Amino acid sequence: MELSNTTTWRILKYDGSMALEKEDVIAAEFPLTLKLDGEEFATLVCSPSNLQELVIGFLASEGVIRAAGQVRTLTIAEDTGIAYVELEHKHTVSQAHYAKRFIGSCCGKSRQFYFHNDMLTAKTIMTRTRITADQCIRFMRELQESSSEFRSTGGVHNAAIGTTAELLAVRTDIGRHNALDKLFGYCLLNRLRTSDKVIAFSGRLSSEAVLKAAKIGCGIMLSKSAPTDLALRLAEDLGITCVGFIRGGEMNVYTHPERIDFGI
Amino acid sequence: MELSNTTTWRILKYDGSMALEKEDVIAAEFPLTLKLDGEEFATLVCSPSNLQELVIGFLASEGVIRAAGQVRTLTIAEDTGIAYVELEHKHTVSQAHYAKRFIGSCCGKSRQFYFHNDMLTAKTIMTRTRITADQCIRFMRELQESSSEFRSTGGVHNAAIGTTAELLAVRTDIGRHNALDKLFGYCLLNRLRTSDKVIAFSGRLSSEAVLKAAKIGCGIMLSKSAPTDLALRLAEDLGITCVGFIRGGEMNVYTHPERIDFGI
Repeated sequence: MELSNTTTWRILKYDGSMALEKEDVIAAEFPLTLKLDGEEFATLVCSPSNLQELVIGFLASEGVIRAAGQVRTLTIAEDTGIAYVELEHKHTVSQAHYAKRFIGSCCGKSRQFYFHNDMLTAKTIMTRTRITADQCIRFMRELQESSSEFRSTGGVHNAAIGTTAELLAVRTDIGRHNALDKLFGYCLLNRLRTSDKVIAFSGRLSSEAVLKAAKIGCGIMLSKSAPTDLALRLAEDLGITCVGFIRGGEMNVYTHPERIDFGI
Repeated sequence: MELSNTTTWRILKYDGSMALEKEDVIAAEFPLTLKLDGEEFATLVCSPSNLQELVIGFLASEGVIRAAGQVRTLTIAEDTGIAYVELEHKHTVSQAHYAKRFIGSCCGKSRQFYFHNDMLTAKTIMTRTRITADQCIRFMRELQESSSEFRSTGGVHNAAIGTTAELLAVRTDIGRHNALDKLFGYCLLNRLRTSDKVIAFSGRLSSEAVLKAAKIGCGIMLSKSAPTDLALRLAEDLGITCVGFIRGGEMNVYTHPERIDFGI
């Protein structure tokens, strides 16, 4: 049984003159604790859909695994919110590395801000895949139309992966980075080739979002929201085309515009 | 010198028919690593304003300190992004506790999801402070009008604390929880009485946001965004009035409506 991403709550709705009691649909927030070979590794606060993909994507994003096959067993106890993961080969990277920031100037102008695990897993993207401006706009519109949870609760983020012609998978989560990790898990579990694909994202283009695109291996990232400067410096460096503020037929291309065909 | 929360970037702006190069204002994303008595404690990815408040508020939120006076020295090296903190009394809680989730049923129906440090620092709020529906709407409007960074970049969250009559402080950050930690730091550094105050927040009412209100000691939390179910269960339990979707003169009251005066 799949847990639901939404639930209901009795509210007082004030319309400017009266407050009436009614039942409202709200986003569910589910704490999922990962136990890796018996040890507590992390707690993800997430929407409880696609939990298997979330665990696989998160472990890959953290550099613990590189392929879904490196997980021997994955058991999710939905009642206690614990995911038990057993790896094929016992995980040897010290957990102390996971939160450690890498400060140095060894590998390029903007690489002073990578966490240690990002150094190991974020790849520079070399794809020749291109997309037209119209496809960017259509892709973002389809992403937004696909999310019934957003329409009912207003409280979730969406991420999608697709070809330049169509969306292949859309994932939803209250945590913007979890939505990207679920996509990453989907790609790994389905052994999807990612270098010729496009990611669309409802959230802001933060450094973490751009690093996740690099880890997934996708060179084009579309968003309806704003970017940050650190995200754009990383995207320049990692070869990722960032397009933001895709709204009402307009868009801003921030990095690597050579992959966008404006048809002019 | 205060670092700027915004910077500029050369973009290609596509308006539906043409792509023109222009300079755009974007949100800065600044990694700040906290060293606590010489040891790396955490890295906050933040907007670089009000960093002293951010550090004090974050340490209080994590349960490391209870008052600003427990920090002997705080030195922020803006060039390397490192905040050096020396405490009055060496910090003894094991760091291993910071990420550990507390699962148990000892203290109330919804308390199965608290992190260990939350158990120590989140207080149940008993205030008799009340606010009118009109004040809620005005408070949220003033918060939004006060943020020039949001208007120029679209990429930041705001949080404010005030009396029912006026805003006292507004803080901005690309990270929604950092904006609340900056407010917490402001309250501690100014020894502000918080039990009779109101928090307004541009971000979603997540469990983490509600826990931060409880740690700050505020019983009324206003937001223009959606809540999650876990946030509402915690708010019920911790005695916090949550008001969401404050937009266009309307609002939803989710928990503890006894503090809202609808004037009916």
